[in-house]
Amino acid sequence: MELNKYIEHTLLKQDATRQDLEKLLLEAKEYAFKGVCVNPFNVAAAKKYLKDTSVKVVTVIGFPLGASVSEVKAFEAQKAVQDGADEIDMVINVSKLKDKDYDYVKQDIEAVKAACSDKILKVILETDLLTKEEIKKACEICIEAKADFVKTSTGFVKNGIGAKAEDVKLMADTVKPYGLGVKASGGIRDKEKALAMIAAGADRLGTSSGVAIVS
Amino acid sequence: MELNKYIEHTLLKQDATRQDLEKLLLEAKEYAFKGVCVNPFNVAAAKKYLKDTSVKVVTVIGFPLGASVSEVKAFEAQKAVQDGADEIDMVINVSKLKDKDYDYVKQDIEAVKAACSDKILKVILETDLLTKEEIKKACEICIEAKADFVKTSTGFVKNGIGAKAEDVKLMADTVKPYGLGVKASGGIRDKEKALAMIAAGADRLGTSSGVAIVS
Repeated sequence: MELNKYIEHTLLKQDATRQDLEKLLLEAKEYAFKGVCVNPFNVAAAKKYLKDTSVKVVTVIGFPLGASVSEVKAFEAQKAVQDGADEIDMVINVSKLKDKDYDYVKQDIEAVKAACSDKILKVILETDLLTKEEIKKACEICIEAKADFVKTSTGFVKNGIGAKAEDVKLMADTVKPYGLGVKASGGIRDKEKALAMIAAGADRLGTSSGVAIVS
Repeated sequence: MELNKYIEHTLLKQDATRQDLEKLLLEAKEYAFKGVCVNPFNVAAAKKYLKDTSVKVVTVIGFPLGASVSEVKAFEAQKAVQDGADEIDMVINVSKLKDKDYDYVKQDIEAVKAACSDKILKVILETDLLTKEEIKKACEICIEAKADFVKTSTGFVKNGIGAKAEDVKLMADTVKPYGLGVKASGGIRDKEKALAMIAAGADRLGTSSGVAIVS
């Protein structure tokens, strides 16, 4: 198995330096990872560095709380695409999901989808904060809103676990019949966990431990 | 001392429900707090509820990572003001401060300031991640960029402490000669800590424990 082709090499720490970014980009190229996942202000530099490679530039929108208004999430996605992002990972409005305001949740995703043009849209559910029923419902909304992937976690929940095999399986069972993919992220730090996520149905792995996983 | 007049009653949890918001707004009115601090998607509802009171509606921009591009932060601030926000708490680009790219940090703040019109702009430094030198430098940039307040913390740093008296004092010593205020936030959960922050120079307190502090 070419494990590197599952990995989005990730750097989202708010105090990451330019040097940290350069290390990430160099490693992504060297190990031919599927992509890098960086904060919006680093998209242009990442794209410039990776332009002659097959490594995709992924960024995050409304991250990590998902609590921006839809128009702002859409604008942020549009700017990211202009800066060279190949894929957009947005965060769902968790509060509105909890409130069962499903129309809001759907329209929030649709607004970002419209701003992404032909780029891939992944929707982060933040599974640590959700019940199984809420995870399933969120997946159904993502299908309706024509997202391309559902993703487990931001990695920023206090005392959060991140990706769990049972959640990945539930997400995969719900979305795969409709052609969507699943990205597992948060707390994936070794090969064993990476393989468990893939066995549960993950098509992509978001991790800052990509090099350790493939080495 | 009217401690309630220092408090911005805060609810920024990404899974807060409508019921949590209503409780916050009711308490803010009852205790006549200085303000409420809510996520952007809740600004319009908060303003509607508080319109005949003196309670200010405060919201957060580029929150909590500060890693959105400046144009997006500015657009988010503009939308928040349109929705009724009285005050804007933006997060600094911590990475660019670490990289000593001070022009970027200043222009990032100026972009949001321009979008705020006459509303109050506070700049969150995220002191948990900074050295004393970086805190002082960030304060100097905020003075140059004509911010109205400097603020210690988002409350979202993993294993972060939040507001510390020594940091508040350093910030107050640096900005007060230039007429800026200081907001202490993060980890302020009781009256003792609240009073220590004010003694160190805080003009405002951001806390989700406002009721406990004044009771």
